Amino acid sequence: MVVKNVMNMNPGDGATSYANNSGLQKAVISETLPLVDETLKAMFSAANGRFHAKCLKLVDLGCSSGPNTLFIISYILNAIEDLCSNRINSANDHHLPEFEVFLNDLPDNDFDNLFKLLLNSNLFNGKKTRHCFLYGLPGSFYCRLFPSNTLHFAYSSYSLHWLSQVPEGMESRNQENICIARTSPPEVFEAYAKQYQRDFSTFLSLRGEEMIAGGRMVLTFRGRSVEDPSCTDDSAHLTLLSQTLLDMVAEALGFEVCNEWVTLVVIHQGEYGNEWVTLVVIHQGEYGVIVEHVKKEDLYSFNIPLYPPCEQEVKTVIENEGSFHLDKLHGFRVRWDAHDNVVDDEDNPILKKHRSGKLVADCVRAFMEPMLAAHFGSSIVDELFGREPYDRMSPLGGCGNTCPHKWTPSTIGGRKLIDFSRNS
Amino acid sequence: MVVKNVMNMNPGDGATSYANNSGLQKAVISETLPLVDETLKAMFSAANGRFHAKCLKLVDLGCSSGPNTLFIISYILNAIEDLCSNRINSANDHHLPEFEVFLNDLPDNDFDNLFKLLLNSNLFNGKKTRHCFLYGLPGSFYCRLFPSNTLHFAYSSYSLHWLSQVPEGMESRNQENICIARTSPPEVFEAYAKQYQRDFSTFLSLRGEEMIAGGRMVLTFRGRSVEDPSCTDDSAHLTLLSQTLLDMVAEALGFEVCNEWVTLVVIHQGEYGNEWVTLVVIHQGEYGVIVEHVKKEDLYSFNIPLYPPCEQEVKTVIENEGSFHLDKLHGFRVRWDAHDNVVDDEDNPILKKHRSGKLVADCVRAFMEPMLAAHFGSSIVDELFGREPYDRMSPLGGCGNTCPHKWTPSTIGGRKLIDFSRNS
Repeated sequence: MVVKNVMNMNPGDGATSYANNSGLQKAVISETLPLVDETLKAMFSAANGRFHAKCLKLVDLGCSSGPNTLFIISYILNAIEDLCSNRINSANDHHLPEFEVFLNDLPDNDFDNLFKLLLNSNLFNGKKTRHCFLYGLPGSFYCRLFPSNTLHFAYSSYSLHWLSQVPEGMESRNQENICIARTSPPEVFEAYAKQYQRDFSTFLSLRGEEMIAGGRMVLTFRGRSVEDPSCTDDSAHLTLLSQTLLDMVAEALGFEVCNEWVTLVVIHQGEYGNEWVTLVVIHQGEYGVIVEHVKKEDLYSFNIPLYPPCEQEVKTVIENEGSFHLDKLHGFRVRWDAHDNVVDDEDNPILKKHRSGKLVADCVRAFMEPMLAAHFGSSIVDELFGREPYDRMSPLGGCGNTCPHKWTPSTIGGRKLIDFSRNS
Repeated sequence: MVVKNVMNMNPGDGATSYANNSGLQKAVISETLPLVDETLKAMFSAANGRFHAKCLKLVDLGCSSGPNTLFIISYILNAIEDLCSNRINSANDHHLPEFEVFLNDLPDNDFDNLFKLLLNSNLFNGKKTRHCFLYGLPGSFYCRLFPSNTLHFAYSSYSLHWLSQVPEGMESRNQENICIARTSPPEVFEAYAKQYQRDFSTFLSLRGEEMIAGGRMVLTFRGRSVEDPSCTDDSAHLTLLSQTLLDMVAEALGFEVCNEWVTLVVIHQGEYGNEWVTLVVIHQGEYGVIVEHVKKEDLYSFNIPLYPPCEQEVKTVIENEGSFHLDKLHGFRVRWDAHDNVVDDEDNPILKKHRSGKLVADCVRAFMEPMLAAHFGSSIVDELFGREPYDRMSPLGGCGNTCPHKWTPSTIGGRKLIDFSRNS
């Protein structure tokens, strides 16, 4: 299966990088930790003889590149070591297992940055010196990633809402929407839903081949809070983005009238010696001020391969595919500015709203910029995010009735967290 | 063990990148192929039941980033598949094995470029669709890289002459030499030799823990053609480099006399209104022309962690360490311009010599630039390689008796190729 889209996060460790703008994703990971604990406990308890393997193989699917990757891997390793230490104390088992940890993402992911972070991390040292081997695994999780029956535990956070591709034939049918939105026509909902079913089913089937019997996965991804996608806009931040792009189209349309390439002919009649000559100075230039603009056809052909499924869709695919038992399915809400922990301007709602809106915009830019730049050209990105009135991006809302995109926590997308284990 | 030096090759795929200047390394790999075939045949022959594993784990240690990495991995996979196909035809074994291929280098290696090359390669498709899983393995091969008893085959080409660090206490003792050279004092030879013994012994011991019984390694690295390092200069290209640096020191010393920072005081006596005033315009600048130069103390403190061992040293470490049997040890010569395959100026020896010298200089730059830039600053690199009279770098020699570095094939370093298997 070919993953056709540019889907990496903003690389590096600069101001607009994913590494520095993934506080929301960190907040989501933190919410999942109790379930990670519970799952690992069930796997590695003293009573479960199946996981007395000398070497455990773990993977973070769609790990991206930044401190979150190190955080969750470190958390999982510590948790397993604690569980195994308890077992060692209560049985004749004297050795902690060795760990093979695979960090998976698409080949365009910033692995170089990730490897440098690893080098400076303490992942190799647990309570004792740890035999932990870390590998980069470039490839789509919609393809096989491991040999058969070798994987013990898979974790994936905030990646599985990315499809392998935009459903085929979407060109222009979704108009100015960039993914499914309230105003998308029914056939667009249907095409996205079918693509999701195919992709998630493929994912389960492949992991089913790779995991040992009894292996488990904890998967977290953006979800839809209701079944009917036309009833809610869980991706309101992306709707706002598409509307800003539409604003830029409208401005460009108005502008293009005076943006024709013209040839200016400057004619100067002068005297040279005693002959009258006519000098023609020709300069090919642009009339009007140059601004970056977005073409309507570019916006209409831009769709991103993102699909937040509802609970029932997730359940149905898991049951139909059949490789895994569903242990838990739990949806929860996370505010887009959940990582806003500045308190000093608590009494200044305007400042706070602006800052929380900026956090959301930075977060959206960190995961959308490579896709936007590949489609529209990198020159529009600064303006797109620079012109965004951040207040509108804030989940604190408060921009009044005139604004159709009043964001309140109740309209921020629900996320699904699933823990399920392979049928043994 | 901390690997203390900058030791990555030039990244990317530009004009000075390792990826585009590794023809010599390709020539070396090509020389080793018959021995790779022979080794794999011994491992995977129908008679050898030990390697009927469902999944084979292979590693390229010090793989760097470029087409050579893909070439050798592809060659090894095809060879194993052929051998296994023969076995399948002659036995009740119906399945080709799955492959886990690990690409190892230091974390600063250009893995991003390597992963992009992989994506466009045909490594995933052999004669049938191949189950081949490729992983990046950032880390020093002087540390543990794999869990115990899991590795089947290790290959390493042109990496093991790099030590884990410059021997301690080398500061100024090696004077203008940048690694062991004819004029190095005996204590420098000794310190480098001891560091090599420690490092290679560590390497063997670690791989011994990681490999399954019967696993094999094919290792190729730069070697020394004679035991006494003061009798020959197998690293004449690096001697030439250190002499060019010394030239730059000498020029800088001459230059520094007139390169003092001076304060220029420009005094202009003029009339302002009816009063006489004295205007003093002060400009702090540099007197003389700014050129990049090399400080003597920087050159004297620059040593690279490279050691080409002689055959006896290699044998001794392998025997003393004891984890592996030595199957074959074979030294051979490769001309530094072995990859010069342009024939159209065959009749023009001057052109040919210049081109072959340029090839050598480009090759040296590809592996030396990051180290040079980290120590002297990146600004000297263009001048260092730009001023090099390429003819002197050519193994065709011919620069007459006045040149002390007449390179002929007989003085180009011997390389060792070893094939040995783990004691079972």
